[in-house]
Amino acid sequence: MPMSPVHLLGAGPVGCLAAILLKQRGFEPIIHERRPDSRREGAYGGRSINLALSNRGFLALAAAGLEAEIQSVGLPMPGRLVHDRQGHVQFQAYGKEGQAIYSVSRAGLNYKLMDLAESQGVPIHFESRCTDVLLAQNQLLLEHQGKIRHESYHVLLGTDGAYSALRNAMQKTDRFDYSQSYLPHGYKELHIPPSSAGEFAMDPDGLHIWPRGQYMMIALPNPDRSFTCTLFQPFEADPERGVDQGLENLRSDEEILRFFERDFQDAVPLMPTLLDDFRKNTTSSLVTVRCSPWNYGPSCILGDAAHAIVPFYGQGLNCGLEDVRILMELVDQAGLHPKSNQEAWANVLETFATTRKPDGDAIAQLALDNFIEMRDKVADPRFVFQKKLEARMQEQFSGQWTPLYTQVTFEPLTPYHQAYRNGQMQQALMDRIIDRIHESLPGEEHDNVDLIDPIIQQELHASGQT
Amino acid sequence: MPMSPVHLLGAGPVGCLAAILLKQRGFEPIIHERRPDSRREGAYGGRSINLALSNRGFLALAAAGLEAEIQSVGLPMPGRLVHDRQGHVQFQAYGKEGQAIYSVSRAGLNYKLMDLAESQGVPIHFESRCTDVLLAQNQLLLEHQGKIRHESYHVLLGTDGAYSALRNAMQKTDRFDYSQSYLPHGYKELHIPPSSAGEFAMDPDGLHIWPRGQYMMIALPNPDRSFTCTLFQPFEADPERGVDQGLENLRSDEEILRFFERDFQDAVPLMPTLLDDFRKNTTSSLVTVRCSPWNYGPSCILGDAAHAIVPFYGQGLNCGLEDVRILMELVDQAGLHPKSNQEAWANVLETFATTRKPDGDAIAQLALDNFIEMRDKVADPRFVFQKKLEARMQEQFSGQWTPLYTQVTFEPLTPYHQAYRNGQMQQALMDRIIDRIHESLPGEEHDNVDLIDPIIQQELHASGQT
Repeated sequence: MPMSPVHLLGAGPVGCLAAILLKQRGFEPIIHERRPDSRREGAYGGRSINLALSNRGFLALAAAGLEAEIQSVGLPMPGRLVHDRQGHVQFQAYGKEGQAIYSVSRAGLNYKLMDLAESQGVPIHFESRCTDVLLAQNQLLLEHQGKIRHESYHVLLGTDGAYSALRNAMQKTDRFDYSQSYLPHGYKELHIPPSSAGEFAMDPDGLHIWPRGQYMMIALPNPDRSFTCTLFQPFEADPERGVDQGLENLRSDEEILRFFERDFQDAVPLMPTLLDDFRKNTTSSLVTVRCSPWNYGPSCILGDAAHAIVPFYGQGLNCGLEDVRILMELVDQAGLHPKSNQEAWANVLETFATTRKPDGDAIAQLALDNFIEMRDKVADPRFVFQKKLEARMQEQFSGQWTPLYTQVTFEPLTPYHQAYRNGQMQQALMDRIIDRIHESLPGEEHDNVDLIDPIIQQELHASGQT
Repeated sequence: MPMSPVHLLGAGPVGCLAAILLKQRGFEPIIHERRPDSRREGAYGGRSINLALSNRGFLALAAAGLEAEIQSVGLPMPGRLVHDRQGHVQFQAYGKEGQAIYSVSRAGLNYKLMDLAESQGVPIHFESRCTDVLLAQNQLLLEHQGKIRHESYHVLLGTDGAYSALRNAMQKTDRFDYSQSYLPHGYKELHIPPSSAGEFAMDPDGLHIWPRGQYMMIALPNPDRSFTCTLFQPFEADPERGVDQGLENLRSDEEILRFFERDFQDAVPLMPTLLDDFRKNTTSSLVTVRCSPWNYGPSCILGDAAHAIVPFYGQGLNCGLEDVRILMELVDQAGLHPKSNQEAWANVLETFATTRKPDGDAIAQLALDNFIEMRDKVADPRFVFQKKLEARMQEQFSGQWTPLYTQVTFEPLTPYHQAYRNGQMQQALMDRIIDRIHESLPGEEHDNVDLIDPIIQQELHASGQT
């Protein structure tokens, strides 16, 4: 029996990692990418779009031997640096000493994965756009230089992102549940260059947030000592909810400057190209895509194609890379090999799709919830107190309390849906602990561990956590 | 200035009614229908698919002068005829004396509307399929006999149903919220012919329901004295929820008969072609489509294209026809005329889309809720008691209590979203009244109006309804 290639749509990080790990196992992956080869166009040298990579992403990359290399070029962010309107900055650790998420260039990561895939013999066909998939016939239609050809597939993996062509085809099949849901917010990328001395213009050891209730700005450090800033702001003004400026209203130089000087005062002097960037950079929207089932016979979507989420937990790509890790575990468990038939593949893909779907749903919801946390709660004294308590509980009652953020970000073996459930229970418990502390202790004793530890211990015990 | 035609996609009842009412106002509507002219194919003479038409539909049809004619060929159904497993039948009135919903042939209604549209000079182009809409250019692509032509539109109304081509184009625009969500149930149409004496085989004065918890069968009378039955059943078995047979498991004659004889015993002798029908008729799925916004410049979707709902409130077409009535009110209010420009149209369509959307959402949810009522609650003693109380309350405390079903079905001037909100409040009140009656009165006094009226009156008063 001849070997049957595994076709992949999309040469993004998820598609490349899947191809590399399949190749390692002796399969014949082929990638079709609709865009030209971006490595040739020097986009890498340009202004970077960065993302936060954390333990789930690193664990998946480890299988390709890339963990250490990517971590070494990333910038560790051990916590949030929260800016108030007066420019005061407060540090909130993400986890324990030594734990951090990493600011990584999206393009740089992608190029490394493309290079590695090609060096291992995976063909990447650029400008090869999938225009449709004939699911019942196991055929894909590929357009290259204006010509469309039909290609039969043995196995097809849709790693083609939020606007997936494979998912589009699936959406036309009966009983395919699908939703695309937009936030009322858009985002715009802005820029803080290195200082005139060539240094970082702000502290590079963290993720900067300017939380402003219904909206916020964030900034992540880049290796070239610049920061990429992102403003998340409703498209339309909504005065009842404290949004007097929508992205659509900010038109004149005066309006833009007045808005930034009021809300992001300490950042404005660091942004010499603010007005230019604000005008030149497009405003993008924020979509959550949920669908089911992810599989159809020997085809399956993964990554953003299956679960495009908003960026507020920094988990979008981590989740996509984890999809690949989990799929490979199932491939190995089922003993799939290069000559396995379509039915064997279909079974594995079905298992992947059904077992992984609850994790996709959970991280989608967590990402939406975290927007509220980032733009609003991080500035709330009760939230700040909760973070302190969580750190204390993790230290003093280790094993009985792992904060939700830690489970999601630093514990890749806890499935997202499990973390989500734990988080729901923990928040109820935490609310009881904080209420009791507030009711029974005067403000000056809220840091007194001799007084708060017994309360924590009683509530942990009552909730069955001990 | 020349007149600018209004293009409509789809010659279903909603598209035809909209065209007729636009023509009345001097506009130049043109309908494009992807199917051949079904009137020529004698589908009308075949087995009918019927639907329940009620006051919202009739009010909208009245504007085309068709109310009396359609009502005269429909069969009034003043209530539900609920069959238990032993074949006992219980009548539950839908409303007051004289109120009824009507079983109407879908094809017959559609043909009348097509005939009327054409007789008033509205061209209907059959086999003219919209393959895409270029929204930004106000162009539609129409395929006729294998050739595709571009047609510019001044105004475009998408009355092209649950799989709307216009909505498909809208779905690709930024920030278009969309969901398609399927029930785990499918449905299959079955048939009860007239008796050998040429009479109705069952009581024709009602909508027959065989409620069986997670599933049900219904039957609507036809003018030819047959009944069209519909079985609503989960695709897959789900023993934990009392579904030991999924539609997919019913394969052999034995399995099908055993299932029907256990659950629909009294119907089986009336269904001589049961096995044949069960095999021959396709199994269809049940989708709810929600989306927003419904408009884009001078184009707008209405009817199922904007809000495909499940059929359990009998409101799908009523809601679509009501869309047309409401749109025409807005056209008149804005003083639109045949030479109005696209901006004037865009404003009216925007108003329609934003004000009508909450009604589409409300009836979608009501239809889903009513499935549970029909398949499960109608057999519940508490529900039956509530229906009795509601009748009493409507009679005795008229003006203070209008049952939800009555608001939705018989009061077309109450918007769906208002009915939905009222229904939520009323159910809470009704639960309190029933609880008090159960707690304070022995069972034999539950019909004693001298004892229950004071309880009702107190609770109505306490809730601010008096």
